[in-house]
Amino acid sequence: MTSGAADPASVLTIDRTAIAANWRLLAGRLKSGAQASAVVKADAYGLGAAKVAPALARAGCVDFFVATPEEGLELKPLLPQARLYVLEGPAPGAEGLFVEQGLIPVLNSANQVEAWLATSKGRFPSALHVDTGMNRLGLSLDDAKRLAPRLAKGSLVLAMSHLACSEEPNHPMNPAQLGRFRELLAELPGVRASLANSSGIFLGSDYHLDLVRPGAALYGVNPTPGAAQPMAQVVHLQGRILQVRDVDTPATVGYGATHAIGRKSRIATVAAGYADGYPRSLSGRGEGYLGGRAVPLVGRVSMDLITFDVTDADPHLARVGGFIDLIGPGNPVDAVAARAGTIGYEILTRLGRRYRRRYIGD
Amino acid sequence: MTSGAADPASVLTIDRTAIAANWRLLAGRLKSGAQASAVVKADAYGLGAAKVAPALARAGCVDFFVATPEEGLELKPLLPQARLYVLEGPAPGAEGLFVEQGLIPVLNSANQVEAWLATSKGRFPSALHVDTGMNRLGLSLDDAKRLAPRLAKGSLVLAMSHLACSEEPNHPMNPAQLGRFRELLAELPGVRASLANSSGIFLGSDYHLDLVRPGAALYGVNPTPGAAQPMAQVVHLQGRILQVRDVDTPATVGYGATHAIGRKSRIATVAAGYADGYPRSLSGRGEGYLGGRAVPLVGRVSMDLITFDVTDADPHLARVGGFIDLIGPGNPVDAVAARAGTIGYEILTRLGRRYRRRYIGD
Repeated sequence: MTSGAADPASVLTIDRTAIAANWRLLAGRLKSGAQASAVVKADAYGLGAAKVAPALARAGCVDFFVATPEEGLELKPLLPQARLYVLEGPAPGAEGLFVEQGLIPVLNSANQVEAWLATSKGRFPSALHVDTGMNRLGLSLDDAKRLAPRLAKGSLVLAMSHLACSEEPNHPMNPAQLGRFRELLAELPGVRASLANSSGIFLGSDYHLDLVRPGAALYGVNPTPGAAQPMAQVVHLQGRILQVRDVDTPATVGYGATHAIGRKSRIATVAAGYADGYPRSLSGRGEGYLGGRAVPLVGRVSMDLITFDVTDADPHLARVGGFIDLIGPGNPVDAVAARAGTIGYEILTRLGRRYRRRYIGD
Repeated sequence: MTSGAADPASVLTIDRTAIAANWRLLAGRLKSGAQASAVVKADAYGLGAAKVAPALARAGCVDFFVATPEEGLELKPLLPQARLYVLEGPAPGAEGLFVEQGLIPVLNSANQVEAWLATSKGRFPSALHVDTGMNRLGLSLDDAKRLAPRLAKGSLVLAMSHLACSEEPNHPMNPAQLGRFRELLAELPGVRASLANSSGIFLGSDYHLDLVRPGAALYGVNPTPGAAQPMAQVVHLQGRILQVRDVDTPATVGYGATHAIGRKSRIATVAAGYADGYPRSLSGRGEGYLGGRAVPLVGRVSMDLITFDVTDADPHLARVGGFIDLIGPGNPVDAVAARAGTIGYEILTRLGRRYRRRYIGD
């Protein structure tokens, strides 16, 4: 189906110029000598890694992080000049795949290090992930100190760790993790070091080290919650109006009859629902924007449809085929997330596949 | 990547025999003369319409409902004998597509009816959706009464409405909606009628009419919340263990350092996160199953990873490459949904694309 009058789908616009600008803004904040990578795991946080990563490469990014080998294999042909790191590293027996495909494994455990050494014989690059407080993936500090020298002889191109509380600038975990990481780095002169995610960049230049790893901020999530948003918005999600109906009392809207109509009203039904990643937790509390003003979501979010009260909206805008902003200038991704009781990251990574996706810019 | 030891992905198993059995169970409950369709919109509630719908056709299902024309176009070549209804109907200008492709539009508004009449000239089948209380899509009763006779002359093959409160057997909306719908049916002798979704089937034979439209129940969601689950489970989601670590006090797990370790513990990190549709709202309150016993999710759900406390689990099971049930016999989809603060429908439709999908049975 082509886009146009006969297309009933809602439209998801992704601004690659904004993504590139966000990357440059972050890279420009770094202390001298530090560089910015890009985290493009989870399909570039739901925005389409195959479309987003090449735009970042054109902006100057060389180091890219994905979560799984499959994500790496998808991007490898699109990023011929890049260093492509796979955060979960090789499963036992998959080391050869990394060598053959030129993927850089992030080694997270003593077993992964040993298996990698056996296969790579020190001839292929790897990264070492030391856990400094997440207790999720990564070697213990003792294991890292013990094993890193064996990797360093060959091919250790990056030592990394991951911050647990970087969104809270005054959290004691931040300096504690930096201190632990430095213990390892002291034993690895000449190896590049990376600690900061998006929010970590804003903790100050001590955290920049050699390489930072922004993800969410590239895609318009505020890396400094509670302070002004430094990033450009990337996502515009326009919900297509399928029907506008006049409703009078007594009547209710949607499943469970949770929304009672209190006056003569107009209800717009929009082609998006929780199957498209619009959270069901926005039932009765979501908010769309139409012609620059908010319109309340009424009733429950259903699988394929949501309903807005457009009684007070301009009837020339609240019409079949028109659009209500589900994510846009008036309701950016962080605001939608806050209403839904989650974070912008989850809103982005859930964005559904029935939307008509448009890439602009770059 | 092939499945096996070197495959780090979590595994989503979908039991098509169970789906077919659920369809037969529901069809067998109906009053004499009533038939069961299948709702396969939203990619068969996230389970893969192209794999699921043909299994339902082999079980005897003839009538299928999708939400959008694109969903219909995907299934049309796979269901050559089926009647394929598109619930949102044609957008203005898309009527010709429905005719050409043999999709049956569900007409939801007076404008859709008029446009359909102009294009189809009464020579192609259509369904008419009358709103009886959802106030979402559908004609008003007055519009339906006025326009249905013009369609009926030609090709009206189904009159339908949709229940708002069918999960609550004693809700007054149920008989009220049935009564309104019968007002229309009285004027449409000989036209097949459909009102009941999964839960509506259990409201009794008055609601069966000619055709019922189960969706969620086919996929293992309990259509009778609060009463015994009559449906077979369909989904088994096994989270792959990427790493098992020993952690001692003082330590915390995950983002925000929300989980404090209180004793010598073992933490298993699993390859699934909110980017895979595992809800972030399960942070600190999810539950996996390992060897038949529950293991608590600890810390926050992150984008690609979740962490379980496996201190008390069998160490032969809590090992790298092993699996923790994220959805399974001990924690079926409704139970996971209840913990997450949502409904099974949302859990299913969110199931991510990084899982290794296995179809069994049929």
